[in-house]
Amino acid sequence: MTASTPGIRLRHALEVLRERSPLVQCLTNTVVQQITADVLLAVRAAPAMVDHPREAPVFAGVADALLVNIGTVTPGQVEAMPAAARAAGEAGAPWVLDPVAVGSLPVRTPLAHELLALGPTAVRANASEIAALAGEGAGGRGVDATDSVEAVLRAGRDLARRSGAVVAVSGERDAIISADRTTVLTSGDALMPRVIGTGCSLGAVCAAVLGATRGSDLTAHDAVLAAHALLGAAGTVAARSAQGVGSFAVAWLDALDTLTPEDVVTLVGIQEDPETAGVMA
Amino acid sequence: MTASTPGIRLRHALEVLRERSPLVQCLTNTVVQQITADVLLAVRAAPAMVDHPREAPVFAGVADALLVNIGTVTPGQVEAMPAAARAAGEAGAPWVLDPVAVGSLPVRTPLAHELLALGPTAVRANASEIAALAGEGAGGRGVDATDSVEAVLRAGRDLARRSGAVVAVSGERDAIISADRTTVLTSGDALMPRVIGTGCSLGAVCAAVLGATRGSDLTAHDAVLAAHALLGAAGTVAARSAQGVGSFAVAWLDALDTLTPEDVVTLVGIQEDPETAGVMA
Amino acid sequence: MTASTPGIRLRHALEVLRERSPLVQCLTNTVVQQITADVLLAVRAAPAMVDHPREAPVFAGVADALLVNIGTVTPGQVEAMPAAARAAGEAGAPWVLDPVAVGSLPVRTPLAHELLALGPTAVRANASEIAALAGEGAGGRGVDATDSVEAVLRAGRDLARRSGAVVAVSGERDAIISADRTTVLTSGDALMPRVIGTGCSLGAVCAAVLGATRGSDLTAHDAVLAAHALLGAAGTVAARSAQGVGSFAVAWLDALDTLTPEDVVTLVGIQEDPETAGVMA
Repeated sequence: MTASTPGIRLRHALEVLRERSPLVQCLTNTVVQQITADVLLAVRAAPAMVDHPREAPVFAGVADALLVNIGTVTPGQVEAMPAAARAAGEAGAPWVLDPVAVGSLPVRTPLAHELLALGPTAVRANASEIAALAGEGAGGRGVDATDSVEAVLRAGRDLARRSGAVVAVSGERDAIISADRTTVLTSGDALMPRVIGTGCSLGAVCAAVLGATRGSDLTAHDAVLAAHALLGAAGTVAARSAQGVGSFAVAWLDALDTLTPEDVVTLVGIQEDPETAGVMA
Repeated sequence: MTASTPGIRLRHALEVLRERSPLVQCLTNTVVQQITADVLLAVRAAPAMVDHPREAPVFAGVADALLVNIGTVTPGQVEAMPAAARAAGEAGAPWVLDPVAVGSLPVRTPLAHELLALGPTAVRANASEIAALAGEGAGGRGVDATDSVEAVLRAGRDLARRSGAVVAVSGERDAIISADRTTVLTSGDALMPRVIGTGCSLGAVCAAVLGATRGSDLTAHDAVLAAHALLGAAGTVAARSAQGVGSFAVAWLDALDTLTPEDVVTLVGIQEDPETAGVMA
Repeated sequence: MTASTPGIRLRHALEVLRERSPLVQCLTNTVVQQITADVLLAVRAAPAMVDHPREAPVFAGVADALLVNIGTVTPGQVEAMPAAARAAGEAGAPWVLDPVAVGSLPVRTPLAHELLALGPTAVRANASEIAALAGEGAGGRGVDATDSVEAVLRAGRDLARRSGAVVAVSGERDAIISADRTTVLTSGDALMPRVIGTGCSLGAVCAAVLGATRGSDLTAHDAVLAAHALLGAAGTVAARSAQGVGSFAVAWLDALDTLTPEDVVTLVGIQEDPETAGVMA
């Protein structure tokens, strides 16, 4: 199959991101706040990390989009995150859940399920986190990170159907899964997971593209795919000049700043309906 | 008018900064702590982020200067910030208020006004934040960020006269405003606001230069101007080699480390009394 | 004396680090979380900053090693840190104490002593912090940072004997001190302390090498020495290309990523029993 239609929609989503400069509120972990803000600025979005429990829901009512990342959850965030998610929902603003390390840890695991029940626009995670969210929802049927790609895709589709969210599974290849559509993206470089915050920033950029494209003819699936493609394409470019993880991170930010939407389209591989086509087998 | 006198004082302030290596306590937001510390180290100051409510005022009694930035205010900081500001005041140490996003958010807005009433040596902010602080103080007369430069200068002068602080309004050009002096600084590069923390670090460096020059014949106005000139000059140099926001941030830290006070003087434009001269019209 | 035996053990420790990719839990200060995580990833360890008081001890039971750094201690951390240290101890996992700014500050000082009493595998600090920990333990006999190298070595040896920990004193040269062994390491560059987090990351890498080598024939002393050598060697290499502190930090991460264990051995100087040999005099 040709990727022309997805390619055109991808380029369009990235053009809209650059034009609209969405204001993205991030309730995120303390490890990655700086790089998340720098990535949002690089892609022309405006970051705001307003996370006090009394301020977060107020701000969520005016921001264009919201990221909720539970990586270093605090007692204050346990209160602020559901409140902000509800406020975003009431304002009609898209919001993204990144359920970092959900599974058995006793604070974040029930929090992630509480947040999921509030109806995120998208869930971005790695395979084991998606499996943990989907597995418990399906009555404890375990799907773990060592399972096959097919099992992960099945868990992602279960989660997408049950929650109504676009589910993005990050890995060597990324899978973007909606109730009725699955897209596999080939992009990026092996150095990306070796720089802290590349995954967490991806959640923020998903929120940014969702916020920018809200009200357009692009779907949430298109927006989440565009965010993954942009960050992956920048990784491919950065790897060409990197001398190691330090210079890779710098070159990645430069590429996020300077790559055009057309550049991104040429740097990634997009495959729709991979199960039919046997791509993930 | 020639800028010779301000230039000599600027160079002197930066020489004193390098010689004295002031210890700067930062109660600041979690997004920018790393870059703030790196910027302080680059300009030869010593950063310390002691912010526990029981420790912050103790440390403020021994630090050379204090920064209070309310960007990600926490319940602990609501307690620690006024206590540290009072301790700095009692010790005679200069302190800087950066009232990030003051306006309508329900925790930081009253906190910013409480802090302002404690008498900061300087207030550093963008135009809309200065307007929010000044506007409410003037009985609700609104001045917003879309207002004219003249309106912002007027708000800044109101705030400076009422608070006794040096008021620094950051923007494409910076305005440094005291009760009886206004200086407009032309420096920097359009990439600066696209790197997170360049503005927040500026507040920290204002504190550093104030701490270093305390007891000298330089005024607080001179010190705040010197901090803005140093960071802006480094931005001008960094932009020459940057390939995007990532390499810009790296080159900016390098320039902060290596520019001499003489270099800084040649890289910026300083204009005193711009209203008389019509510079800001 | 030849350094052949320490050199072989050093290389072996670094090889094990690369092979095992230890999971290192960091309860650390908010200023350095990003660089600490990036350093751990660069040296092939896996960072996790799980620090909620209810989650920290659970995670410490499964992590390979734990770092406890009190640099920006919060009320939550005052609770989480001893709980996690106890859990690590019960699980037999090594843990490292970095007692940042211990001395007179009223929250961290008793916390550091409480943590010391829980039996860290290693204590990493600068001379004045080691002196503060040792001095109070010895009944208030003060040893301060301006004291002679001999006094610091004596304080370090007191602390090592009393606590059973490997004590690492960072400085222009590093001293690694166990009850019956003292090693002095010459490595690094003067730019290292001018980049925030190089010291704090060193504590995390000590934990990483301790976690990787647990159960091998390498001692905790060997592991702590290897961590110091690795970070110092990378500093030596980074200084060759750096244009200032910004590019130094980038090149340092690149070197941490790419230096082989053999490279490290050739880039550092190791001296056993310096007092006998008069090296530190």
